[in-house]
Amino acid sequence: MSSLKSQVSSLSFEIVACEGEARAALISTRRGVIETPVFMPVGTVGTVKGIRFEELESPDLGAQIILGNTYHLWLRPGIEVIKASGGLHKFIGWDRAMLTDSGGFQVWSLGKLRKISEEGTEFRSHIDGALCFLSPEISMQVQAALGAEIAMAFDECAPGEATHDDARRSMELTLRWAKRSKEAFERYRTAGGSQRVDVEKPVPPETAVDPLATASGSVPTSNLRHNQALFGIIQGASHLDLRRESLERTVEINFDGYAIGGLSVGEAKPVMLEVIEDIAPRIPADKPRYLMGVGTPQDLIEAVARGVDMFDCVLPTRNGRTGQAFTSRGKLNVKNARFTNDQRPLDESCRCSVCRRHSRSFIRHLYLAGEMLAAILLTHHNLAFFLDTMRGVRQAIRSGQFAKFRREFTEQLSSGFE
Amino acid sequence: MSSLKSQVSSLSFEIVACEGEARAALISTRRGVIETPVFMPVGTVGTVKGIRFEELESPDLGAQIILGNTYHLWLRPGIEVIKASGGLHKFIGWDRAMLTDSGGFQVWSLGKLRKISEEGTEFRSHIDGALCFLSPEISMQVQAALGAEIAMAFDECAPGEATHDDARRSMELTLRWAKRSKEAFERYRTAGGSQRVDVEKPVPPETAVDPLATASGSVPTSNLRHNQALFGIIQGASHLDLRRESLERTVEINFDGYAIGGLSVGEAKPVMLEVIEDIAPRIPADKPRYLMGVGTPQDLIEAVARGVDMFDCVLPTRNGRTGQAFTSRGKLNVKNARFTNDQRPLDESCRCSVCRRHSRSFIRHLYLAGEMLAAILLTHHNLAFFLDTMRGVRQAIRSGQFAKFRREFTEQLSSGFE
Repeated sequence: MSSLKSQVSSLSFEIVACEGEARAALISTRRGVIETPVFMPVGTVGTVKGIRFEELESPDLGAQIILGNTYHLWLRPGIEVIKASGGLHKFIGWDRAMLTDSGGFQVWSLGKLRKISEEGTEFRSHIDGALCFLSPEISMQVQAALGAEIAMAFDECAPGEATHDDARRSMELTLRWAKRSKEAFERYRTAGGSQRVDVEKPVPPETAVDPLATASGSVPTSNLRHNQALFGIIQGASHLDLRRESLERTVEINFDGYAIGGLSVGEAKPVMLEVIEDIAPRIPADKPRYLMGVGTPQDLIEAVARGVDMFDCVLPTRNGRTGQAFTSRGKLNVKNARFTNDQRPLDESCRCSVCRRHSRSFIRHLYLAGEMLAAILLTHHNLAFFLDTMRGVRQAIRSGQFAKFRREFTEQLSSGFE
Repeated sequence: MSSLKSQVSSLSFEIVACEGEARAALISTRRGVIETPVFMPVGTVGTVKGIRFEELESPDLGAQIILGNTYHLWLRPGIEVIKASGGLHKFIGWDRAMLTDSGGFQVWSLGKLRKISEEGTEFRSHIDGALCFLSPEISMQVQAALGAEIAMAFDECAPGEATHDDARRSMELTLRWAKRSKEAFERYRTAGGSQRVDVEKPVPPETAVDPLATASGSVPTSNLRHNQALFGIIQGASHLDLRRESLERTVEINFDGYAIGGLSVGEAKPVMLEVIEDIAPRIPADKPRYLMGVGTPQDLIEAVARGVDMFDCVLPTRNGRTGQAFTSRGKLNVKNARFTNDQRPLDESCRCSVCRRHSRSFIRHLYLAGEMLAAILLTHHNLAFFLDTMRGVRQAIRSGQFAKFRREFTEQLSSGFE
């Protein structure tokens, strides 16, 4: 592994303040500095659903980094289309940092539609039922073409209630896949420049045939395949011994950052917090810690208190589309008849453009009338609330006020609506 | 009618430039000055579908006035909810001018679901099938509560291919309804202040029971019911003699402006243009001329050339939601496979935020993936194109270059995509 360890990391991580386990840090990428703790809006197929990029960039939201998804983008529009644009950033028109998930979780989520083997995962496309195959090598190849600042190792997830035996099997497979992910990733990273690399065996550039090349194969790949960082993923379901072992052996492979995967997949919330509390502080302190797919604003704060730096979750966007607003006083369901004539904003403490302009009454009307604008406004507010909460978290840690922030946030949340 | 004629109009109209029949004018309302020729985006249920009000106000679009719809808003959320907010502007959060359609056209569009009598129209709600009744008086009452700067008389539409007899019957009914609309409207307007007016007979304020009053009947109505203008609607299908008679007798009633209704409802395009060419110039020159529900950007320019000042149409929003972009070189259907790897913007001549940022390739992907952002971006661009075209029309008329503008616009449109 020594050759892997000798790499120069493509991102730097600097802690600027701590309070207990909570940390405020800076992640430097080729596309700017990300202040942590950070919430990353989910842009599965190249769009954070229901919101324009201009809004994500606006001071209201100020998203520093968004997610893309290997599985979804690989199936549609396909890597050829994204490569023809010059990578995912150019394809979608987003110049800030991105992170791509490996597709492991999405394929796992397909349930009966997928078959997992040592080599990888065979599955049916959720779009057209076509038989597809995803492996660590293919995921890395796709992620290299997408060109996000942070790529993720290809992992297998175990259900929250997995037995010790099942969770171990899954964890061991994830570790073998992590090694293969890292090795494939390094081949792309060290190849660099305009070289093309076959996924199975590196070949000299003059004879290389890129398996991802398009008919118009003249698209330069020089900007796609270097300066990417790769994060490993810790699995082990709710079994702390497996989680610790997964962590230790994943760290041995040496990644640029470490994610806690396989949480918020059916286990009870105290179990989730127990895993985070045990594992997050054991992740090397000089590397970013990313909790995948979690959670509510309160979950985020509790995880920050346990040492987590990075988050992604579909809650603000998905719940926005189903009429639910996250507010400083808890969740608000705009469908509720009590809001029929309620002239107040979604959240009276919020200063986002939706809360400055529109009433609960109007947004409820839009939702009941099936108008797109309901989802647009709720998504905007929810993202603003998540991102603003994390801004508050960062400021609090930097000023040594995080314990107070956490206590007051929780108190207000549980006070409910009058 | 003399008492009606003595009114002070609630809007002023000033022509600033003419070229042939085309005119550039200013309509002053209590919510600012509208420069004509003007395109009014359609906000049927209180939202211009798929676009935020901030975008409508942005320089990209610069919408001066938007439409609301009496029929839709009356059924949902209902006038009580809008009154509780203090009128339609406050309910939706829009501080620029609005125009409300009377509901006549929408009820007529219900086809077999409605029964027209002298008194008004009985119909089944498209939402829940409930039996409803709309008349000139009720439409005026609802429009007074909505409080738009411009209200429309309650009319009946005849199909484009209506026989002379059918068109006459429809036109005569529309004229009787126009008188009733005007009379009901004047009762609200002259009542003014905080007075409440029953729709059937005006009563002193101290005993008035407002049929639209909510349980929380304390909502002041003083801002809702004055300073509104009322436009009459010219009908007569494709029969020029009926159109001229309709115009003459509608003008006798004396409205603040005149609309040409019942076009773009199935008749051939040359027939539509013939009616506009014959009728628009006969409308009193000192009043705004509004062509209802028409049309493509080219239709707009042709109508301006025939003397029309105001337009509304669902094309930019509706077609945006079905994947069609209006461009300076004609319509572009993003579903088309030829755009799969097309890195160009929707319209290479367009400077809107969508065209500055996103490619046809990306928008096509969004559309095929069923993503809301496709509709959002296409709607934005289409509205930008319509509104920008009208800005160009106004500048051209003011500088005496409209004939040239019209010719070049048409030439470019028919040049198509390379």
